[in-house]
Amino acid sequence: MVYDLIIIGSGPAGFAAGVYAGRAKLNTLLLEKEFAGGQVINTYEVANYPGLPELSGAELAMKLQEHAAMFGVVPTLNEVVDLELDGKIKKVITTTQIYETKAVLIATGARWKQLGVKGEEKLRGRGVSYCATCDGAFFNGKVTAVVGGGDTAVEDAIFLSRYAKKVYLIHRRDKLRATKILQEALFEIDNVEVLWDTQVQEIYGNSKVEGIQLINTKTNETQPLEVDGVFVAIGTDPNSNLVKGKVAMDEQEYIIANENCETSIPGVYAAGDVRQKLLKQIVTATADGATAVYAIERYIIENWK
Amino acid sequence: MVYDLIIIGSGPAGFAAGVYAGRAKLNTLLLEKEFAGGQVINTYEVANYPGLPELSGAELAMKLQEHAAMFGVVPTLNEVVDLELDGKIKKVITTTQIYETKAVLIATGARWKQLGVKGEEKLRGRGVSYCATCDGAFFNGKVTAVVGGGDTAVEDAIFLSRYAKKVYLIHRRDKLRATKILQEALFEIDNVEVLWDTQVQEIYGNSKVEGIQLINTKTNETQPLEVDGVFVAIGTDPNSNLVKGKVAMDEQEYIIANENCETSIPGVYAAGDVRQKLLKQIVTATADGATAVYAIERYIIENWK
Repeated sequence: MVYDLIIIGSGPAGFAAGVYAGRAKLNTLLLEKEFAGGQVINTYEVANYPGLPELSGAELAMKLQEHAAMFGVVPTLNEVVDLELDGKIKKVITTTQIYETKAVLIATGARWKQLGVKGEEKLRGRGVSYCATCDGAFFNGKVTAVVGGGDTAVEDAIFLSRYAKKVYLIHRRDKLRATKILQEALFEIDNVEVLWDTQVQEIYGNSKVEGIQLINTKTNETQPLEVDGVFVAIGTDPNSNLVKGKVAMDEQEYIIANENCETSIPGVYAAGDVRQKLLKQIVTATADGATAVYAIERYIIENWK
Repeated sequence: MVYDLIIIGSGPAGFAAGVYAGRAKLNTLLLEKEFAGGQVINTYEVANYPGLPELSGAELAMKLQEHAAMFGVVPTLNEVVDLELDGKIKKVITTTQIYETKAVLIATGARWKQLGVKGEEKLRGRGVSYCATCDGAFFNGKVTAVVGGGDTAVEDAIFLSRYAKKVYLIHRRDKLRATKILQEALFEIDNVEVLWDTQVQEIYGNSKVEGIQLINTKTNETQPLEVDGVFVAIGTDPNSNLVKGKVAMDEQEYIIANENCETSIPGVYAAGDVRQKLLKQIVTATADGATAVYAIERYIIENWK
């Protein structure tokens, strides 16, 4: 059997594509390698998905999943290990079988960036975390550091301040990138201290994080700081390994696709955070999913009549 | 006072922009000339806004309005009659005053297309309608015609079949453009009849619609058809008159803006149905609103430091 569409990844983009593909009666397979919902399930509160304020990320993911299921599209747990995209029939190769399809939608999202410093890998899950809303509650009454200067870093610091005795926000520049409303909220919190012009050189500790080594980017002075936890919030990398060398990408390996989500290969589409674009948000991911399916419907009609 | 941002139009794009602008603490004015909500308030059921299935259009519009209000952005009723967009400070001229702003977001949406046949204008509101979900209930037990072949026309015919004794779907081609799921639903309804290859030449009646004159596009044969109501569902035209001759547009007068909603004039943005794009849906309108505000934030930082 040849599917009309295989969607790889079940975050907001994949589920929105599922809603539209189900309504368009495309014979659709939605593949997920790990857990449905995407990165958003780790978000404590999603305040800016228009029309659905004040939901947790997990609640929003569940609503998106239920919506796709209403039209018959539910995730199948199966890890894709390779893709053959050049022919008219595309092959999606998982650990257990080979699927054939007319069109492929890459909706694999992005993942947290690592600092790349000594101790980070060793102490991951032992005080090094990439998700304050997942792990913050473990640091009740402790001292934590958040590394970064964008929305996520500031949100993480605010969230952690509710648990931790003290939160250091460590930022390599002298101003934050985060939106003003978040910065204002941050600066009002007593137990948060921003360390400007500062980078983490090393995370140290034996069985768990005991501290970090800091360097001032202007003076080059170094100093240790005792902390119990380090939250790395410096952005994301795309989950685009599957199509590396197959479709056009930018330098950061985000897939280059136009506004209609068409990649450099006919029949292959990219939606959501894995696609290069200005604003990576849930609402732009769901819009991508909808638009991609509409483009795919037309592609199939034009090529498979 | 110079606003950071004036949003013109309070449909899904305008309200989503309001959510993002409010959170970014932009000093924002949201102008609406008529009634808040946009075209969507006339939609009986919105089934494909991801995460919020089974709401009426009016309920969804209300949720979007409440969401923007949470961040301090509420519509001001005031009709914009002219715009001066060339300077760094833009002027938005309404019937009562002149506002100044750093950036303008055109989110004026689109409106229903007219057939342009004899009798249409004269009998508008007297049996000629562009909104089945608004006016359908007036045709309980009557005979109605829907003109068109896309999603809206098929949805209208399905909706009207619940009220009308008989619904004719009049389409100039021999197949429908509507998505399959809708077509299948339509073909199952007993009191709907599709008249293929047929166009409306005239709508006749004295004080109200009495019938329509039809022509077969293949044989050129004409015939009258007695109906009590005509629902015109042949698409939309953009509400872009305000910026005609000022920003770049396509032949249908949709505003040409890139994926970041930037028009041909710096500081002027377009979001939602008024912008030329592949898929005009609520979710792509809200995504536009979010993306536009993000682009506007950057524009203001770069130009107004």
